[in-house]
Amino acid sequence: MDLQSIVKPTLILDEEKCRKNISSMVSRARELGVDFRPHFKTHQSLEIGRWFRELGVSKITVSSLDMANYFSKEWDDITIAFPVNIREIDTINHLANKIKLNLLIESEKVVQILDQTLENHVQVFIKVNIGNNRAGLNPNDHDRIKSVLNCIASSEKIDFKGFLGHAGQTYKCRNENDIQQTHDLAKSIFVTLKDRYRNEYPNLILSYGDTPSCSKAINFEGIDEIRPGNFVFYDTMQVQIGSCSMDQIAVALACPIVAIHEEKEEMIIYGGGIHLSKDRLHIENINNFGSLALMTSEGWKIIDKAYVKSLSQEHGVIHMSKDQIKDFSVGGLIMVLPVHSCMTADLMKHYVCTSGTGISMMHYQRT
Amino acid sequence: MDLQSIVKPTLILDEEKCRKNISSMVSRARELGVDFRPHFKTHQSLEIGRWFRELGVSKITVSSLDMANYFSKEWDDITIAFPVNIREIDTINHLANKIKLNLLIESEKVVQILDQTLENHVQVFIKVNIGNNRAGLNPNDHDRIKSVLNCIASSEKIDFKGFLGHAGQTYKCRNENDIQQTHDLAKSIFVTLKDRYRNEYPNLILSYGDTPSCSKAINFEGIDEIRPGNFVFYDTMQVQIGSCSMDQIAVALACPIVAIHEEKEEMIIYGGGIHLSKDRLHIENINNFGSLALMTSEGWKIIDKAYVKSLSQEHGVIHMSKDQIKDFSVGGLIMVLPVHSCMTADLMKHYVCTSGTGISMMHYQRT
Repeated sequence: MDLQSIVKPTLILDEEKCRKNISSMVSRARELGVDFRPHFKTHQSLEIGRWFRELGVSKITVSSLDMANYFSKEWDDITIAFPVNIREIDTINHLANKIKLNLLIESEKVVQILDQTLENHVQVFIKVNIGNNRAGLNPNDHDRIKSVLNCIASSEKIDFKGFLGHAGQTYKCRNENDIQQTHDLAKSIFVTLKDRYRNEYPNLILSYGDTPSCSKAINFEGIDEIRPGNFVFYDTMQVQIGSCSMDQIAVALACPIVAIHEEKEEMIIYGGGIHLSKDRLHIENINNFGSLALMTSEGWKIIDKAYVKSLSQEHGVIHMSKDQIKDFSVGGLIMVLPVHSCMTADLMKHYVCTSGTGISMMHYQRT
Repeated sequence: MDLQSIVKPTLILDEEKCRKNISSMVSRARELGVDFRPHFKTHQSLEIGRWFRELGVSKITVSSLDMANYFSKEWDDITIAFPVNIREIDTINHLANKIKLNLLIESEKVVQILDQTLENHVQVFIKVNIGNNRAGLNPNDHDRIKSVLNCIASSEKIDFKGFLGHAGQTYKCRNENDIQQTHDLAKSIFVTLKDRYRNEYPNLILSYGDTPSCSKAINFEGIDEIRPGNFVFYDTMQVQIGSCSMDQIAVALACPIVAIHEEKEEMIIYGGGIHLSKDRLHIENINNFGSLALMTSEGWKIIDKAYVKSLSQEHGVIHMSKDQIKDFSVGGLIMVLPVHSCMTADLMKHYVCTSGTGISMMHYQRT
């Protein structure tokens, strides 16, 4: 399609930037000496997945069984980096019969239920909390860890693969130095754990996540594989964290301008929470739901200082100076660089490349 | 389906509560002496729409041309309460040839473009800002209003229907008294505008929105029609505003429990931002992404004080006391009452009634 013929909110993908983000991370993993198991929850697209394969990637991470099912068409080694949902045992069995499936567990109970209901072998990671404080076992609670390990050892269908951690606390960082320090602390907790269990389990691996660390940290000694996901597109949240620069962001939502209120320094766009998601930044106590850019024949160009100040279901309200507003008119298009590209992509369920080519992605299977 | 067989996040609809919310608003409109043109952006379902028609409703409001297109299968008088997106002129023409279509405008330019591109008659409302400060003309800027009115008058295809306002500032209210006062002020601005133009345009109507006012305010003298939408389901945001009680909320997301961290007073559920949306309440400086309930054979029962404290893409983290957590186990289900039901419904794209019957809704047409 011709981008000038867009009639409603459309997620535009800059393929060149996206491929560059992928190849940079592939190179980084090689330099850092870690395996690369990218998280595909951000792009959720078989086609974009192939851009990874072209660079030698052969194993992936996803965050739901639906996603694993979708990607199992083309990928045969998938980790589901989400605590096992035992209610989906039928899908687990379907997948474990077909591909190498790696699951995440953190309790004896789930191991026991899996042992009773699995039809085939799976490998499991024990999820540990390395500072993000969301899911996972306390890495110092060795009674719990040993108890889960014993439970795994007593099952013939479940093999222990290693520990999985996500240093999501890097999302609170605001520059590279912060990221480095946060990463170093998380890594040291993680590697200490490995050192304790490596004699007993010489093949155990450490699987480590998060885009900020994997984009900027230097020392990955002791880590075996990384699972960043967001870096494929990046977004303004990652710019705020210090993971990337604005010109690395590879997706933007093209939105029709439906009203201009020059006197209020505002424009109304067709593009709301159902397109961008309600994720926001707080910058100097102001909510910011996205940055703005102008579509040009050489891709989008950032519009300095302008931002999305609020979102309703379909409305977006843009703040922009009177001078800048003069370049726009009702019926024109403007691009919104998302705060959180994972959420925006999940909402839009489709990409259009700057070349005009459409790229499909998975659709959530409603019951 | 049997609700106990749910395997992943599923939006449950209590049909009885929903029908009661609808009939209460139908009765209120009758008592207040106003026409009822409910906003269907909340439920987005032809089937739920029929529950309105059974009670005599014959005209509706939507917020996008996609929605108007979807509902035009069964409804022939539709207002699109969103500033006209002239890029979608083909859909506008398609609909205006088929049904009575009412559009929202706020500038001469859009009227001129419509005049040049419309194939058939439409009626338009002038959007005015009655305190929400999002879209619309300043109701005291009579130069602008007259200029737009003259522009409309000079078109043979566009008829002036009246003024449309949305007192969305009621969302900042925290009790019925607040709502009443906020409504009274918005209404007085709105009615003053009508009084000024009614000699020249004796058939002009005032179309007025928002669930809080329409649920609780008493005096609608001078208002001709109301367009609330959210009341069909309500949500915890409306409880906080003072529009409804917890037992009027008609939707809840059933979520599998995937991990329990009793020592942290937390549980992890499969149910995240891609299911609930990231809309949140701030209650005593704490983010709250939803309230919790237990599914019983007589519908759901609120779990006192427990709440969703954070949401990632697929993860939800629940705060709940150690005592309460004892009633749950991994693999069980828990219900989340959404903060903003419009957004949750839009994300889920499907309902399952407490009886087990599925109800479909519109799907966004990706380009």
